Amino acid sequence: MRVLEHPDVEEIRLEAVLHALSDPMRLEVVRFLATTENGAACSEIDLAVSKSTGTHHYRVLREAGVINQVYQGTSKINSLRRADLDELFPGLLDSVVSAATRRPRR
Amino acid sequence: MRVLEHPDVEEIRLEAVLHALSDPMRLEVVRFLATTENGAACSEIDLAVSKSTGTHHYRVLREAGVINQVYQGTSKINSLRRADLDELFPGLLDSVVSAATRRPRR
Repeated sequence: MRVLEHPDVEEIRLEAVLHALSDPMRLEVVRFLATTENGAACSEIDLAVSKSTGTHHYRVLREAGVINQVYQGTSKINSLRRADLDELFPGLLDSVVSAATRRPRR
Repeated sequence: MRVLEHPDVEEIRLEAVLHALSDPMRLEVVRFLATTENGAACSEIDLAVSKSTGTHHYRVLREAGVINQVYQGTSKINSLRRADLDELFPGLLDSVVSAATRRPRR
């Protein structure tokens, strides 16, 4: 089975995480995943963008170390790397998720 | 005296703040300003970049609502919009500043 590349914990950089979070679509993915226990398939998260655009956003999140992606059959299951991020940048993910949850859609 | 444009509090967007923070130079400015009481002139913060590149980074921070810039004579004094950011995105600035302070330089 194909395994997707993920950065090791020590390779995760603050700038890259902030960049990955600085997009409304990717914030929406992160906000949604924060509400799940065991992650979600891409198809469960409605981004209202083309498949290739969606794939791009998930890849940016994965390569920055924000999410894990594993194949389950033909679909990818996404989950937040909460433990890694909380260890590296205490409070960051929580503050971003709660700000993203409260923000008005503009 | 020239007055620089700043977004009103209600115009500050999470995505723009995260984008402004997603650059090592701009993170360094924010980290430095967090250590000051009343802000600092650009010349006090050593970014080791050209003047125009430095000016660009300060502008991105100002336009995103992360910093205030006011003229004092011929130099600009920069300060964090801490109260605004803390009100809009509780915990975000603190977590970013503390992560930026602890992170190894790579």
